[in-house]
Amino acid sequence: MKKIVIALGGNALGDTAIEQQQLVEETAKPIVDLVEDGNQVIIAHGNGPQVGMINLSMNYAYENGIIKGEMPFPECGAMSQGYIGYHLQNAIGNELRNRGIKKDVTCVITQVVVDEYDEAFKKPTKPIGAFYEKNVADKIKSEKGWSFVEDAGRGYRRVVASPKPIDVVEKNVIDSLVNSGSIVITVGGGGIPVVEKCGKYEGVPAVIDKDFASAKLAEIINADSLVILTAISKVCINYGKANQQELSHLTIDECKKYIAENQFAPGSMLPKILACMSFASTGKEAIIADLKNAKKALKGESGTIITK
Amino acid sequence: MKKIVIALGGNALGDTAIEQQQLVEETAKPIVDLVEDGNQVIIAHGNGPQVGMINLSMNYAYENGIIKGEMPFPECGAMSQGYIGYHLQNAIGNELRNRGIKKDVTCVITQVVVDEYDEAFKKPTKPIGAFYEKNVADKIKSEKGWSFVEDAGRGYRRVVASPKPIDVVEKNVIDSLVNSGSIVITVGGGGIPVVEKCGKYEGVPAVIDKDFASAKLAEIINADSLVILTAISKVCINYGKANQQELSHLTIDECKKYIAENQFAPGSMLPKILACMSFASTGKEAIIADLKNAKKALKGESGTIITK
Repeated sequence: MKKIVIALGGNALGDTAIEQQQLVEETAKPIVDLVEDGNQVIIAHGNGPQVGMINLSMNYAYENGIIKGEMPFPECGAMSQGYIGYHLQNAIGNELRNRGIKKDVTCVITQVVVDEYDEAFKKPTKPIGAFYEKNVADKIKSEKGWSFVEDAGRGYRRVVASPKPIDVVEKNVIDSLVNSGSIVITVGGGGIPVVEKCGKYEGVPAVIDKDFASAKLAEIINADSLVILTAISKVCINYGKANQQELSHLTIDECKKYIAENQFAPGSMLPKILACMSFASTGKEAIIADLKNAKKALKGESGTIITK
Repeated sequence: MKKIVIALGGNALGDTAIEQQQLVEETAKPIVDLVEDGNQVIIAHGNGPQVGMINLSMNYAYENGIIKGEMPFPECGAMSQGYIGYHLQNAIGNELRNRGIKKDVTCVITQVVVDEYDEAFKKPTKPIGAFYEKNVADKIKSEKGWSFVEDAGRGYRRVVASPKPIDVVEKNVIDSLVNSGSIVITVGGGGIPVVEKCGKYEGVPAVIDKDFASAKLAEIINADSLVILTAISKVCINYGKANQQELSHLTIDECKKYIAENQFAPGSMLPKILACMSFASTGKEAIIADLKNAKKALKGESGTIITK
């Protein structure tokens, strides 16, 4: 029996609730396959499009006087954990019942600790929410201290930091649920980012990379494998070129070499590789694979395995 | 050591995120008092104003072309569980750390099963979302089959059913978390309502009364006490009249007698009394009290206790 942390991409969850529900029903099948094989499964997931939609809607409603208060970004992340977690929990539970497997599925609202002095806070890079005209963006900046960037001619967008996860507040509960046999959905969207101030955890507007959060969680709960799911079946070098080459196995040193050659796209394959390197450095295996081949990948028959 | 289900009102959580955060910090103190006294605490909460705000924002953004898809009502409920659960979890966790108590707090996204043939579905009564002009309401009604009611001259509002809870999907997990020492936040807003169809749970647009859901949960997990928190210190008869009388103890028969006399306002004290009667019928104690006197109420020094 292996303890496996699976990281699902937020982009694979669709743009609307109906799309998400349908996609999640399909996602549930290969996940339950892993459970049927006797694995302990922990599911982490992204929330980029979803938290974007929630943040945009709440603030649009606020700016138009429909609701009373502005919705801070960490709270939008918490909402996205409930929204995505409910669909995952519902679909996986239904698939388990369909196969006659008696197992619980739990979605735990999860706070992930970041360092308030993380360098990332000095250079926010993650665009969120609406596009504004320059003068409006400047006004908001002076009022609220938000950072903005010009986004490909479409206007100015707020940017938040993407700090590194350093701890998972609910780690004990997650571990105890996993050990008692439950499938656990956690660190949604990389977790709700909190910093520790005078002994208190306080939400901060930031986006924690879900692959880094998954790797951190896998390390903390001493998982056997970290499986990062993506749209392609194996990691490639010379991606999209005539000499494209699929890789079945990578060591940390090979990863470093390819990173130095800029083989992996920032914001796409690069964070997945970095997260895998971080987990592999503990001596365990990290895997990058596509969802439908996850089961084969865990047997070494698909995907790319990254080891120390 | 008592196992106590506490039901917090959604109206006591404020109208904005900032208000909610401040109120929840205050709420955490009497809750942690109960924990410090050695009780196992499970927290249920309402979500009326919060799910209203989320539903209104998401659909306003959708109707104005800001986001792609409509957000169904059960999904809005799931979001509200994440939103409120995060604040409660964060504030209670901070209060525990502040007092040096090592205990976990877990917010579990919770689905509550209702009967698709519940009579309530024939007569939807709970208004949600925006106010519409009659012609718009009629158009939506014919397109989507939603029910509408005219609301005090302010326009037409969608109404959904308020069916009775019959089961809690995540009951095993909740019980196991409680038994392993965690404070658990669950059945937020009465739970995400689901019906069972061909072995699958499916979300339905409905509002489950949080007091009924709390009573059902308390019964299922075999709690010792159900504590329904409200703004007043004791249940009253002849409420607001010259001969108003506070009651410290009520039997189920006395409750029935007063209900027949219309002593308890529907949508306010009545559902609390009914929920308490339901739980008290199992032979355990149900209490109606105000938050700051919760600790005293559990010792019989405040609030109204309802027994078989």
